[in-house]
Amino acid sequence: MTMRANISFVTLGVADLPRARSFYEALGLTLHPRSNESIAFFDMSGQVFALYARDALAEDALMHNTPAGFGGVTLAHNVESADAVQPLIDAAVAAGGTQLRPASEPPWGGLRGYFADPDGHPWEVAWNPGVTIDDDGRAHLPS
Amino acid sequence: MTMRANISFVTLGVADLPRARSFYEALGLTLHPRSNESIAFFDMSGQVFALYARDALAEDALMHNTPAGFGGVTLAHNVESADAVQPLIDAAVAAGGTQLRPASEPPWGGLRGYFADPDGHPWEVAWNPGVTIDDDGRAHLPS
Repeated sequence: MTMRANISFVTLGVADLPRARSFYEALGLTLHPRSNESIAFFDMSGQVFALYARDALAEDALMHNTPAGFGGVTLAHNVESADAVQPLIDAAVAAGGTQLRPASEPPWGGLRGYFADPDGHPWEVAWNPGVTIDDDGRAHLPS
Repeated sequence: MTMRANISFVTLGVADLPRARSFYEALGLTLHPRSNESIAFFDMSGQVFALYARDALAEDALMHNTPAGFGGVTLAHNVESADAVQPLIDAAVAAGGTQLRPASEPPWGGLRGYFADPDGHPWEVAWNPGVTIDDDGRAHLPS
């Protein structure tokens, strides 16, 4: 039994669902109509991005909940030009997020910065000329 | 400035990169040739799934690293039949992961269980008749 090369859902545990939902809506995501008072869904081009109460998410995985902090996972949103990195971080801050790292050059080239959402989940905003963004916005590494 | 509806990268911080890489290869993912000794890349149908040293990932986000534990994020791999849930969890255990929750019925229907990868990152394996898997394996919620 093996996996397909797909992550079907990415779910973030949050302390305040309306706050988290509003944050991502302010960044331009459209709430899916199947969302309800317990969970928010966003259709991400063939993947579902979900927001769910952090304690309930831990309980569903039968894991011990821990205080928010670095969770060992980052999500990235790649943009198509270097000029777009800092404005998206600024938009996240305006929507209630926090800047973690301003747009700056990583050792591997390109430009990237980070923001945290209202629950502290880190998002990298990256312009990386080695990553292709297709017409559907999907990211591909060159072969 | 807004986001497109895409998560370009999902990166997991790991303690032992060869161990983590071998685990996901054993589950059927194909290492991308751009991978190197510091990072592993897997092409996930328009998204890049990456494995990177946890301390370096925290440093890149300018976040304080914390011990592994529930990080407030789950990834899900949806399968096309209820029969496929437990075998994939079993395969993960055989590859060096841990079963967190055996296949069981959640309150919202379908069947799901959880495994943790060797670094403790939780994956849900789910059969959910309310989620459509297209020919490319991408997950969609009905409208």
